Amino acid sequence: MIKEAIVEKLDTKSLSSASNRLCIADLGCSVGPNTFFAVQNIIDAIENKHKSEYDGSHKLEFQVFFNDHASNDFNTLFTSLPLERQYFSAGVPGTFYDQLFPSSSIHFAHSSYSLHWLSKVPEKLLDQNSSWNKGKIHCAGASDEVVNAYAAQFEKDMGIFLNARAKEIVPEGMIVLIIPGIPDEVHPSELPAGILFNFLGSSLVDRANEGILNEAQIDSFNLPIYSASPKEMASLVKINGCFSIESMEVTDPRSKIHDPMKCSKGL
Amino acid sequence: MIKEAIVEKLDTKSLSSASNRLCIADLGCSVGPNTFFAVQNIIDAIENKHKSEYDGSHKLEFQVFFNDHASNDFNTLFTSLPLERQYFSAGVPGTFYDQLFPSSSIHFAHSSYSLHWLSKVPEKLLDQNSSWNKGKIHCAGASDEVVNAYAAQFEKDMGIFLNARAKEIVPEGMIVLIIPGIPDEVHPSELPAGILFNFLGSSLVDRANEGILNEAQIDSFNLPIYSASPKEMASLVKINGCFSIESMEVTDPRSKIHDPMKCSKGL
Repeated sequence: MIKEAIVEKLDTKSLSSASNRLCIADLGCSVGPNTFFAVQNIIDAIENKHKSEYDGSHKLEFQVFFNDHASNDFNTLFTSLPLERQYFSAGVPGTFYDQLFPSSSIHFAHSSYSLHWLSKVPEKLLDQNSSWNKGKIHCAGASDEVVNAYAAQFEKDMGIFLNARAKEIVPEGMIVLIIPGIPDEVHPSELPAGILFNFLGSSLVDRANEGILNEAQIDSFNLPIYSASPKEMASLVKINGCFSIESMEVTDPRSKIHDPMKCSKGL
Repeated sequence: MIKEAIVEKLDTKSLSSASNRLCIADLGCSVGPNTFFAVQNIIDAIENKHKSEYDGSHKLEFQVFFNDHASNDFNTLFTSLPLERQYFSAGVPGTFYDQLFPSSSIHFAHSSYSLHWLSKVPEKLLDQNSSWNKGKIHCAGASDEVVNAYAAQFEKDMGIFLNARAKEIVPEGMIVLIIPGIPDEVHPSELPAGILFNFLGSSLVDRANEGILNEAQIDSFNLPIYSASPKEMASLVKINGCFSIESMEVTDPRSKIHDPMKCSKGL
C-alpha cells in the first residue's frame, strides 16, 4: 500500500526540485529492526520512481530521522543500524505530540503502531474518583462515558499531531500512518486487544481480592491506548484541515486469529 | 573567539536567505553537558547578530545535530537535553572521518577536543614489529620515525575530515575547531599530555617487569592521539583547499599548570 501510494500519489519530481535531499521521518521507531525495514521500503519505492523519471544523472540523497521518546533506547537503535544503508541517519528524541523538526523540513513521514498511544490517560478519568472505571484498565467493556473520554483524548491528541506534522512536512509531502484500529460501529471490547485488556483487568482485580494488590490503585490505573475507527480518522483529518486522505485501507483482524469473531473488519 | 568569528565573519543574512532554518552540528559531542553550552553559545551569537540585522519579523529556526560514535551514550545525552532549549535536536551516530550529513545541509559545524583522536593507530606502527615504539604508548618522547608516522596519520585523517565537511557545509558556512595542540617547533614529549603519556608508558613497563603485564602487548599498544601545531593545521587546510582559515588562536598551556615549562604556547 505504501509503495502504491508513493508511485501514484507522491510527486517526487516536485519534492526534489529545490534540492536532491529528501528527508524521511519514522515517528515512534522504537529500537529496530522494524523501523529499518519500513524506511528501506520507502526509500526503495521513492528511488525506483525517481529513476523512472530521470536517467540516473539526478541522484537523491536521503536523510532518515528515527524518532521516539527521549527514554527510548537509542543506543541499541544506533548500534544496530544496517551497515549497508544508503542514507544518512539521525535519532530525534521527543514526543510526536509536539513539533519535532523545523518548518517544511520533512518530505515523507511514517508512523507504524504508535499513534494508538495517547499522550496521556484521558483527563476525565484522572478527574473522577477511582470508581469511574472500576475493575477495568481500559475503555474496552467500559461505560459510554469512559469510551467517550478516551475518544475525546484521541481527538485532542490527533489534532496536536496533525498540526505539528503540518508545520514540519513540506507542501506535497506525504504521511503514512499505520494504526491498530477498530471497524466502524464496533465496540472496543469486541476486538482481540479489548478482550485482552479486560482479561488483564480481571486478573488484577483477582489479585486485589486475594490481598496481593491494592484495589484503589487498580481502579485508578488506565491504559492510555485508543483504537480509532476509519470514520473517526477520516473525520478528525477533515476537521483538522491540514491534510487530505489520499488512501485508507482496512485490514481484517481475523487474519491474525484462528476462530471466527463477531467483528467483520479492522483498520 | 567563536562569538567574534560569528559577528565578524558569518554572513547570517546570506545563510538564512533561502530558508529560516539553520543547522548546527557538534562533532564529537560526547554525552553532555559541555556540548549544550557550546551549542547555546553559538545559537545566542547567531541570533544576536540576526536580530541586529532584522527587526524581529524574520525569526530563525535552529536544528542541532549532536554527533559522536555510534557507541556513544546517546541515551544519556538525550535524557539530559536542556528543557528550556529553543532548538530542534537530533543525534547523529558515526565517525566524523566520513560524511555524516547530506550535501550542503549544515550551516555551522563545531568540534571541541575531539579532532586530536586519530581514526586509528598509525598504520606504520601496526606494520612494524612491536619493538618499533618499545616502552612507549605514544609518539611523545619517541623516535622521529614514530612521530612522523603519527603526523602522517593525522594528515590523512584531516584530509578525510575536511573533505567530508566540505560536502556537508553550505557555501559561506563556518566550521570552528577547538583542538588540544602543540606550539610550533615543540616536541610532543615537552607538553603536559606528552609527559603524562610517558609516565603512563613507564608505569606499564614497570608492571611488565614485575610480571603483572605482558611486555609485548604494551609495546604494541599505542594511543591514537595526536596534537597538531598551528603551522601543521594551516598547512593541511591549505593543501586540502576546501576551506580558508578566517582566524586561528593559540592558548597558553601554562595557564593550566603551576610550575614554569619549557614550551611557550599551545594551540
